[in-house]
Amino acid sequence: MSELRKDPIVDRWVIIAAERGRRPSDFEPTPEPPTSEGCPFCEGNEATTPPEIYAVRDGTAPNTPGWQVRVVPNKFPALSIEGELMRSGFGRLDRMTGVGAHEVIIESPNHFDDIPAMSADHVALILDTYARRTEDLRRDERFHHTIVFRNYKSAAGASLSHPHSQLIALPFVPKITKEKLNSAREHYHRKDRCIFCDLIEQELSMPDQERLIYCNDCFVILSPFAARFPFSVEIYPLQHCHDFVEMDSAMRLALAEALQFILGQYKNTLADPAYNMTLQTAPNTIPRPGHPDYWNSIAYDYHWHLEIFPRLTKVAGFEWGTGCYINPVAPEDAARYLRSESWSAGANEQ
Amino acid sequence: MSELRKDPIVDRWVIIAAERGRRPSDFEPTPEPPTSEGCPFCEGNEATTPPEIYAVRDGTAPNTPGWQVRVVPNKFPALSIEGELMRSGFGRLDRMTGVGAHEVIIESPNHFDDIPAMSADHVALILDTYARRTEDLRRDERFHHTIVFRNYKSAAGASLSHPHSQLIALPFVPKITKEKLNSAREHYHRKDRCIFCDLIEQELSMPDQERLIYCNDCFVILSPFAARFPFSVEIYPLQHCHDFVEMDSAMRLALAEALQFILGQYKNTLADPAYNMTLQTAPNTIPRPGHPDYWNSIAYDYHWHLEIFPRLTKVAGFEWGTGCYINPVAPEDAARYLRSESWSAGANEQ
Repeated sequence: MSELRKDPIVDRWVIIAAERGRRPSDFEPTPEPPTSEGCPFCEGNEATTPPEIYAVRDGTAPNTPGWQVRVVPNKFPALSIEGELMRSGFGRLDRMTGVGAHEVIIESPNHFDDIPAMSADHVALILDTYARRTEDLRRDERFHHTIVFRNYKSAAGASLSHPHSQLIALPFVPKITKEKLNSAREHYHRKDRCIFCDLIEQELSMPDQERLIYCNDCFVILSPFAARFPFSVEIYPLQHCHDFVEMDSAMRLALAEALQFILGQYKNTLADPAYNMTLQTAPNTIPRPGHPDYWNSIAYDYHWHLEIFPRLTKVAGFEWGTGCYINPVAPEDAARYLRSESWSAGANEQ
Repeated sequence: MSELRKDPIVDRWVIIAAERGRRPSDFEPTPEPPTSEGCPFCEGNEATTPPEIYAVRDGTAPNTPGWQVRVVPNKFPALSIEGELMRSGFGRLDRMTGVGAHEVIIESPNHFDDIPAMSADHVALILDTYARRTEDLRRDERFHHTIVFRNYKSAAGASLSHPHSQLIALPFVPKITKEKLNSAREHYHRKDRCIFCDLIEQELSMPDQERLIYCNDCFVILSPFAARFPFSVEIYPLQHCHDFVEMDSAMRLALAEALQFILGQYKNTLADPAYNMTLQTAPNTIPRPGHPDYWNSIAYDYHWHLEIFPRLTKVAGFEWGTGCYINPVAPEDAARYLRSESWSAGANEQ
């Protein structure tokens, strides 16, 4: 089992996953063949993955063809679902057993499928799968937070090109989530307003809306004022909500359309770059609707969102040494660029 | 001039350096020719850099050959040395003018030189140059912090292969430095001890010293307990000191030897990987020795150090979305590996 270790200076857990016994020579890149041959995520190859945890199927048997979205455990998990969560310390050094979940959401039976080219209904199914798995894992009291993420292309960390996302359930609330929660809570306590709602309102009320990229009935895509990376975006629900899981089917469809818009723009106007997408939702350890603490909780002050960054610049010594970033593209220019090409009609019908 | 913008949720400044008007197509990698031809940092090509700020010379004229270490402004600076520091805000959005310094420390007149192969005295000269430039920039009251860093090879962000480091002076104390300072201060206030001294003591007092890689009279190289990246290391002075600039010549020579040891081990045992090195010293905004506040200041609780990370793994959605990292090599295994090959005698005589 892997081990979780806390940095003794900075509030940061690290997963030490040494099981695979990697030697320095194992870090050489192994380029993936561009074909679907032998791809474990393709329809027909179900037996080559661990048994499925969840699938959207029309009555077909588990681990056989005939599915639309399929969730399997990661074959090389960073954290293990089995085992007791044990915490220990020695002097300033804190550790926990590497208990958690690490799942792969296979987004389509088809190797060459891609989010901008799918039907919006299919993308909504993928989003629903994120929510169903997150909901299920929250029932496990060992887990405090769930992160869903998508690495697109090898430069963004993907080891297989078949369209997929991943989900990791963690036995702690991670550093970035805590920072966002603390900031949102502090603002709420001072103002009785959500900081994210305030920011969205400020962006939308500017006469030129220069950082607005896209808006539909339920979602807005913004170019962040202090974006770390060129052409990075944030997608927010217009209506205040702390939890991704609470989305209804109309919202899921609207989010599918927003996601298809921006990923299509990346593909068409930025020459299909590698990117990372992360889903930032509230941690598990907060009261759910119906709980008596609900109205005095984070449900009021946090606001879930998606972050997407194309991988166009290198993170180097300056960034690692300071936590400050250099972005060579003004967020207003990025917004103008990502708005400028109209969403190519027909891409949705492929 | 570039602009500094603060993330409205998380305490993080970003440099928006849009001057170069990059279009998406400008992000294609431009591989550097492997030769020294036309290299602006080579001896004889002094006229192709901006005029030098500092150089170690034996009586030769500025901007001519005959130097050992040379410092020039970065030709494409992230921040500008000229200009007034102006702060402004609008709603939740905070900005500052992009005032700062961005310098290049050319470490040798020879394109093919490399730290492990230099004389230790020459490496000590480079370290002294870091200190002299930091000291000089601290006199400018617009600047609150200086970071020195080294990007080795293109995968770590280097755009030229001629051996060099960089220095950026910032008009604020950056996020990571603040986090370390806060943690060190909190520990000191509780225990009247430096947290870094405690950690070094704990590592050295363990019977098997399993994370100790190297030690000389003045410095220790440790494999961090919660290392984020495989084979990353931290170099600490054994004697408590908050400020890199206070090092004397014997310490500089000892640090040169420690640095040559570990960079030689990377080169010889890890197949010469790309790496980032960052110098973590106290910010400018603290009392210096002699100041009446000195003994009630960070000088007591902070402890300067160097961090070095080889670039062997990819930072992907999970890391960007949580601030938590997955390290596939146990720090104890990394230490054993980096200790195991004895430092090849003679490399120093090349």
